[in-house]
Amino acid sequence: MDPQRLRALLEDVQAGRATVDDTMAALRDLPFRALDFAHVDTHRHLRTGFPEVVLGTGKTPEQIAAILVELAKGGSTALATRVSPPAAAIVTARVPAARYLPVPRALVLGPTPAPDRGRGLIAIVSAGTADIPVAEEAALTAELAGNRVHRLFDVGVAGLHRLLAHRSEIDQAEVIVVVAGMEGALPSVVAGLLARPVIAVPTSVGYGANLGGFAALLSMLNSCAAGVAVVNIDNGFGAGQMAAMLNRKREQ
Amino acid sequence: MDPQRLRALLEDVQAGRATVDDTMAALRDLPFRALDFAHVDTHRHLRTGFPEVVLGTGKTPEQIAAILVELAKGGSTALATRVSPPAAAIVTARVPAARYLPVPRALVLGPTPAPDRGRGLIAIVSAGTADIPVAEEAALTAELAGNRVHRLFDVGVAGLHRLLAHRSEIDQAEVIVVVAGMEGALPSVVAGLLARPVIAVPTSVGYGANLGGFAALLSMLNSCAAGVAVVNIDNGFGAGQMAAMLNRKREQ
Amino acid sequence: MDPQRLRALLEDVQAGRATVDDTMAALRDLPFRALDFAHVDTHRHLRTGFPEVVLGTGKTPEQIAAILVELAKGGSTALATRVSPPAAAIVTARVPAARYLPVPRALVLGPTPAPDRGRGLIAIVSAGTADIPVAEEAALTAELAGNRVHRLFDVGVAGLHRLLAHRSEIDQAEVIVVVAGMEGALPSVVAGLLARPVIAVPTSVGYGANLGGFAALLSMLNSCAAGVAVVNIDNGFGAGQMAAMLNRKREQ
Amino acid sequence: MDPQRLRALLEDVQAGRATVDDTMAALRDLPFRALDFAHVDTHRHLRTGFPEVVLGTGKTPEQIAAILVELAKGGSTALATRVSPPAAAIVTARVPAARYLPVPRALVLGPTPAPDRGRGLIAIVSAGTADIPVAEEAALTAELAGNRVHRLFDVGVAGLHRLLAHRSEIDQAEVIVVVAGMEGALPSVVAGLLARPVIAVPTSVGYGANLGGFAALLSMLNSCAAGVAVVNIDNGFGAGQMAAMLNRKREQ
Amino acid sequence: MDPQRLRALLEDVQAGRATVDDTMAALRDLPFRALDFAHVDTHRHLRTGFPEVVLGTGKTPEQIAAILVELAKGGSTALATRVSPPAAAIVTARVPAARYLPVPRALVLGPTPAPDRGRGLIAIVSAGTADIPVAEEAALTAELAGNRVHRLFDVGVAGLHRLLAHRSEIDQAEVIVVVAGMEGALPSVVAGLLARPVIAVPTSVGYGANLGGFAALLSMLNSCAAGVAVVNIDNGFGAGQMAAMLNRKREQ
Amino acid sequence: MDPQRLRALLEDVQAGRATVDDTMAALRDLPFRALDFAHVDTHRHLRTGFPEVVLGTGKTPEQIAAILVELAKGGSTALATRVSPPAAAIVTARVPAARYLPVPRALVLGPTPAPDRGRGLIAIVSAGTADIPVAEEAALTAELAGNRVHRLFDVGVAGLHRLLAHRSEIDQAEVIVVVAGMEGALPSVVAGLLARPVIAVPTSVGYGANLGGFAALLSMLNSCAAGVAVVNIDNGFGAGQMAAMLNRKREQ
Amino acid sequence: MDPQRLRALLEDVQAGRATVDDTMAALRDLPFRALDFAHVDTHRHLRTGFPEVVLGTGKTPEQIAAILVELAKGGSTALATRVSPPAAAIVTARVPAARYLPVPRALVLGPTPAPDRGRGLIAIVSAGTADIPVAEEAALTAELAGNRVHRLFDVGVAGLHRLLAHRSEIDQAEVIVVVAGMEGALPSVVAGLLARPVIAVPTSVGYGANLGGFAALLSMLNSCAAGVAVVNIDNGFGAGQMAAMLNRKREQ
Amino acid sequence: MDPQRLRALLEDVQAGRATVDDTMAALRDLPFRALDFAHVDTHRHLRTGFPEVVLGTGKTPEQIAAILVELAKGGSTALATRVSPPAAAIVTARVPAARYLPVPRALVLGPTPAPDRGRGLIAIVSAGTADIPVAEEAALTAELAGNRVHRLFDVGVAGLHRLLAHRSEIDQAEVIVVVAGMEGALPSVVAGLLARPVIAVPTSVGYGANLGGFAALLSMLNSCAAGVAVVNIDNGFGAGQMAAMLNRKREQ
Repeated sequence: MDPQRLRALLEDVQAGRATVDDTMAALRDLPFRALDFAHVDTHRHLRTGFPEVVLGTGKTPEQIAAILVELAKGGSTALATRVSPPAAAIVTARVPAARYLPVPRALVLGPTPAPDRGRGLIAIVSAGTADIPVAEEAALTAELAGNRVHRLFDVGVAGLHRLLAHRSEIDQAEVIVVVAGMEGALPSVVAGLLARPVIAVPTSVGYGANLGGFAALLSMLNSCAAGVAVVNIDNGFGAGQMAAMLNRKREQ
Repeated sequence: MDPQRLRALLEDVQAGRATVDDTMAALRDLPFRALDFAHVDTHRHLRTGFPEVVLGTGKTPEQIAAILVELAKGGSTALATRVSPPAAAIVTARVPAARYLPVPRALVLGPTPAPDRGRGLIAIVSAGTADIPVAEEAALTAELAGNRVHRLFDVGVAGLHRLLAHRSEIDQAEVIVVVAGMEGALPSVVAGLLARPVIAVPTSVGYGANLGGFAALLSMLNSCAAGVAVVNIDNGFGAGQMAAMLNRKREQ
Repeated sequence: MDPQRLRALLEDVQAGRATVDDTMAALRDLPFRALDFAHVDTHRHLRTGFPEVVLGTGKTPEQIAAILVELAKGGSTALATRVSPPAAAIVTARVPAARYLPVPRALVLGPTPAPDRGRGLIAIVSAGTADIPVAEEAALTAELAGNRVHRLFDVGVAGLHRLLAHRSEIDQAEVIVVVAGMEGALPSVVAGLLARPVIAVPTSVGYGANLGGFAALLSMLNSCAAGVAVVNIDNGFGAGQMAAMLNRKREQ
Repeated sequence: MDPQRLRALLEDVQAGRATVDDTMAALRDLPFRALDFAHVDTHRHLRTGFPEVVLGTGKTPEQIAAILVELAKGGSTALATRVSPPAAAIVTARVPAARYLPVPRALVLGPTPAPDRGRGLIAIVSAGTADIPVAEEAALTAELAGNRVHRLFDVGVAGLHRLLAHRSEIDQAEVIVVVAGMEGALPSVVAGLLARPVIAVPTSVGYGANLGGFAALLSMLNSCAAGVAVVNIDNGFGAGQMAAMLNRKREQ
Repeated sequence: MDPQRLRALLEDVQAGRATVDDTMAALRDLPFRALDFAHVDTHRHLRTGFPEVVLGTGKTPEQIAAILVELAKGGSTALATRVSPPAAAIVTARVPAARYLPVPRALVLGPTPAPDRGRGLIAIVSAGTADIPVAEEAALTAELAGNRVHRLFDVGVAGLHRLLAHRSEIDQAEVIVVVAGMEGALPSVVAGLLARPVIAVPTSVGYGANLGGFAALLSMLNSCAAGVAVVNIDNGFGAGQMAAMLNRKREQ
Repeated sequence: MDPQRLRALLEDVQAGRATVDDTMAALRDLPFRALDFAHVDTHRHLRTGFPEVVLGTGKTPEQIAAILVELAKGGSTALATRVSPPAAAIVTARVPAARYLPVPRALVLGPTPAPDRGRGLIAIVSAGTADIPVAEEAALTAELAGNRVHRLFDVGVAGLHRLLAHRSEIDQAEVIVVVAGMEGALPSVVAGLLARPVIAVPTSVGYGANLGGFAALLSMLNSCAAGVAVVNIDNGFGAGQMAAMLNRKREQ
Repeated sequence: MDPQRLRALLEDVQAGRATVDDTMAALRDLPFRALDFAHVDTHRHLRTGFPEVVLGTGKTPEQIAAILVELAKGGSTALATRVSPPAAAIVTARVPAARYLPVPRALVLGPTPAPDRGRGLIAIVSAGTADIPVAEEAALTAELAGNRVHRLFDVGVAGLHRLLAHRSEIDQAEVIVVVAGMEGALPSVVAGLLARPVIAVPTSVGYGANLGGFAALLSMLNSCAAGVAVVNIDNGFGAGQMAAMLNRKREQ
Repeated sequence: MDPQRLRALLEDVQAGRATVDDTMAALRDLPFRALDFAHVDTHRHLRTGFPEVVLGTGKTPEQIAAILVELAKGGSTALATRVSPPAAAIVTARVPAARYLPVPRALVLGPTPAPDRGRGLIAIVSAGTADIPVAEEAALTAELAGNRVHRLFDVGVAGLHRLLAHRSEIDQAEVIVVVAGMEGALPSVVAGLLARPVIAVPTSVGYGANLGGFAALLSMLNSCAAGVAVVNIDNGFGAGQMAAMLNRKREQ
């Protein structure tokens, strides 16, 4: 139900053109239809500054391009994730305003940097070189949502001293996103050393008993350290979005 | 939001005590609160004739008794599933109107037989002796919801001729619930021989590579025969309820 | 055993050319051979109006074409599922009467629309854009079997208000097919909001801990809502067929 | 290394009793030993106001009592989780200051309520009655860490209207803990309706294909809604602690 | 359909009391009903000498006793497997003719030894002491079916020399049943050393990554040696029965 | 140790050129070295008539060709399995005596038909069209080992009447190989209807919850029918070899 | 074949009582029988100083006592693992020389300390309090085999500083056994910080997505640090034995 | 913190330019920064003689080349694993000093043979032809780290006599690496026959119920033989490195 329809109903009862009983009957199904008029999802995105997101997996370049064209009309900041380089080439030929970032394999549309909407800093920590694309997807997502991001990459368990050396910087973050594949021990180590909440992202980096990232996922879910919550394997976007929601200034 | 509150809002705008704009703001959250006044779930159960259901697992006998006492006040037909004999003894001591059926391990409250609400017959077919409790839970659920039930038990793959011998009776059912553990082949065989839709119920009967009923569950999900849909392991109640919904006369 | 052979046996005993004992011995194995003469499967399909179905997976285009040619001779309505566009091009070059539908990736043979054989409406509800091919396979299957289908796509949990807005239409369906990947929550939500039986179809849409659709499958099997039964991952055809059997007018 | 030892080393070099080179050698291993003197973990808990926690599983009542006696000496607020009623009776006989809360199955030591240390409100939402113990463990943990908690229990998918009715209250929380077993759909629905971050807690409530809570866990990890991170099955404590860390006032 | 009914039909058509067409219609469903008159399963057991078998799991002692009483009337040799000592005590009190064998946890009814029905010898080889109950269940089953059995127990991989020392005896068996838990390597070793077919029985002996016998089961299914087929975990009965069928003299 | 070396040792002690003690020391390690001289594996194959087998998976066409050239020198009958058509083209160009069979994807070397070495008939029964390559691999293996094979393909649960129609032929086999994918119900049905031992072969035909053939595998392992043993998924070769070993005339 | 039989054979050929050909035939099967006379396993244990081991799981106290009595006769040092306190009470009543150690749940027979047979030190490091029984089983096993053991318990990821504080001691071990449950991160951290080989022991300590220790097992198998090998879940005995074999002085 | 900074701090306190208290505060974070100056990881590799290792999976040829160029500058011996032939061609074009070994699919940089750093011999035993690449990766890794390696390939369970024939050579190794796919029985057999510690490497060689090497992995973890520890599937590098660490002369 659109607002005009609701206003009409209320004006009718105000003017005596409809009885209270009839209006109550008309409103009986309002809750659901009224949601439609609220355009909740759209408004939430605009209000909170989160970018519109297109999951590239399983879409043709033509479909991605069409969606981005549509979003560009509305002036939205938009993010398309999991876009291969050849697909990106096709899309950017059709949507010149879109920029392709090859490491996180993402297409971005709209002005950057985004206005700062965060209470503090988001730290993104990753274990191995092969985890960087997922970490960058998280960082990009957080930045597009208006957050300052501190990156600390390649500090896996075998390079623990590097993490320790940067402890004080990381310890000032509002929330830490920790990205790791293989055995997935890094989030436990980070949460054990620092007193900041950790969003853990398992990656599918590994082989054999890694089970496509399941070993790291289980490791993170069973962390004996305080303050660890986990997102899906390779879900850098989800971690970045969660971190952005956690870091959001309340007045927004 | 209760109806009185809605009526008051409308009377206010009708009487000029509130503006249309203020009322619109007040109604903005109406959809959800209004659901509360609709008492949808309760009304649906009363309207459709499905019994109120209490899942006994994880509840103390005292909790089950308390819920049944409450339901008895409202005159509902009620069903408590997965109640052990000792728990049932405690409950029936407190709720004398409740009757315990040891095979499906269920407590029943309210008048039986229920009025007939079905288009046709529901057939309940089971494979082995150990599958009977699950099959009886399905049958009881369907009967309490007002259906005529035809039972055909102990007709596993090793007793296929018995199923064949009763083919014509089963073939007249609106829907067939097929209960089987072990390898779970029976739903495929039934659906292959007859032209009626099958609700398949895997049971946890078996051992070793049965994986607590998972072997039967997977077998049923992969059925190469037409017209098979599956419910959770040992979920006789769910199958009986689904069958009852499928068999329900439309005018109800 | 063909009917002529059976008739001959009976005429022999009628005419005194064979004894009752000999005829009984001859008939001992009749049941199974007689099945052959009944052509049960073929007759069932013709009688019920279900199309002949070819699972395209693992067949060469040549094999699919050969089968469709054979079915076209008999005048059957036929459906080949899971056919890739290049394979379809080869088949349609050989079987010009076959039409290819790229979204459900299906080849169709025979007159459409099929005569109406349903009691009521089948609703097909799907969650995300990527679930549409499976949803369309379900819809196509149901339509070819003579059902009216109401499609409501792209109403996942994040777009719940859209589902609510169309609640009354969906609530009139005889049965609702709900297609969802990722976390597979939609069938539970639909069954919780409406009082109609739900055939749930998990899809393999997702990644990581989605386990190729297993997460959605398990979610649907464990639904706490009443009236949900589940088919195999991505099995739009099976759901459409089950829905058609459930919606079939009894006199057929 | 204790502070006295460090001070002595520095005083020696200051007084000329040791050379810079010798002192550098002595300090070479300092970092690790120095950690010992810092008593980091202990200090962190005291500083942040988090209670000391004892996981009761696998410990004898005597062991739990001994640890609580030790913590009581230091004046710590302490929490022992997963304590059965008989074990609690033994502990409270020895540690009279400990109070047992039977629903979350927890022993608490120290003054309550804890001083308020949170930025805002933590909402704890749960699906079924059987999920309440886990939800109460989360709530208790958050409260002991100095947070205001809003409980909203028994609002599963089948009671969605209740959640909707309380939407505005929940929407004001800094973070929402959502506890659900069975199919685990509730966190997706909550995150889809509200714009607040969700810590999802799967529970082991269910049977069969629930796989001891794994179905709910996978469902939550695959949530298609924005802003969901997940902790281990039945880990109410971990969710409460994560929520408390996320809600902590920065100046603490 | 019982034979009398069939005879009556044929006599009617012989005597001209029924037409050929009517009789054909009456015979249309004969195949399946006729199976009932053939009493296939019962006859097969009697004809082949296999004992009647009662799976004790999930049955009360009273149920087991009732079934054995029934079978004793018919003079069948009967075997009840997976019967605990307390249950056996109750059964033997009611069925004095039943003998309990504590190692294979089986009740036996009927004359022993059974008449020899085998072509040759069945060897039963087992790995560890804890595998003996399963091995004895296999041996007992084979013996009751009329086979000579050669037992060779406790010859796991760590005791390979014992197997080698008895190689020539085992090599004369028609078929070898190999029972092993833990890593399940023994069937591969036996099949690699000897040229006889092996029925492999994984047991649930082990812990941790043994997964209740699944490790041994997978090991056996992946055997790189020629001539290994596998039955369910702990299924000594099934292996004994399979071996007996393979060893059966053809004229039986 | 070759025979000459053994003979020399014995002649030395016979001639007094060596003491008994020295010879005992020299013989201490004999058992293992002597195995080398026995060439057990080679002799067993030659003696039993089983073909030499090359698993084509993971080998280059050049490697397959080299092995076949080597075997051709010795006059062996040889079988290479899992050879793709392009690989086969390369091999046959180098080994003209090798013949490629595209359905079982196998290369064969040596005279056919092999001399009859079986006691009786081996039946190969398969469920769907897509299972035929595995079934043909089993049939080919059995035939090369000197067995008469009766094929009965495409008799899945949906075509049960065809199996029943051919019951008497199949019932005369010494052993029945049953090949099925999807839900894997066929071996249970065959074993339930006939009194012959069944070697069950699950195939990877299917999708989704089929888990690459695991659903069929588990179904077969849990068969409630007597006389079923199982080999690895898609292991037609193993089933054919097992059947050949079971059917082998004892005098061989 | 015992040595007397071999000697007799050789004396016969020496004395001309047997021909070389006959003796060669008699020796043909020697290799395997000769193994019997070598009593390899027994000798290996005596020679290497490893204790005889009895896995208590699945044995009655009477069986354990009988085995220990037997071993006591031979003067062996013996170890029975996984013995519950009540079982131990029964055994020690019968075998007074046996001592029960309640933490590792082990019975020990024979003189202690064992003579030192190690090259260096074995370090046993464990994560949580609940991991101590497994760690003590490893330590006891290593000590009984003649090794000096350095224990460092309760140094999980949350107590990393304690591990670091004891780094230099641990770094002197020949091999480090690391025992951890939950997320199993400790072996990776230890191997990352030190340059010593690590035998990792996952424990079943944990709940939910721990999967009975599988999460820790997978984590350890996927360790990104150098020098980690893994034993079965809770297999303290196996780790202790492996460490002892690795630490053994070569001259033994 | 670099040494200069530490020296300056100490000189300041020595010279009276800083107080002890200020210096203590400055040193508070030293431990972690000091680790940075120690360059532990780099030094450990140089000191121990282990080569620098690059995991080729997931890196472009350009990235591998760049890393090798960097390492070549420092004069390191380097190893890149899992490099495909086309990638190797690109790398060697850019880094002419790198040599490609096609069987282990590895690139090697630096002088060979490496100086001998081992106490004794490392034996590498493998089961089938397809396991050789993994076995060669283990052998190469051990050799680059300065070990003498004895290879014994193609001695699977079906060729057990070959292993036995080479028993005495293998028995002299300090540690044995055993590589096997399929059922993974070989490590158990080797450890059962010999008294040397075994590092077991499961490979992904196999199909169907092999589960990508998981069957072999589980088999090895459950080995009933003494002295077996396991690394990840296909992890030849890890096994070679572990063996090298175990074989390292202590004075290094």
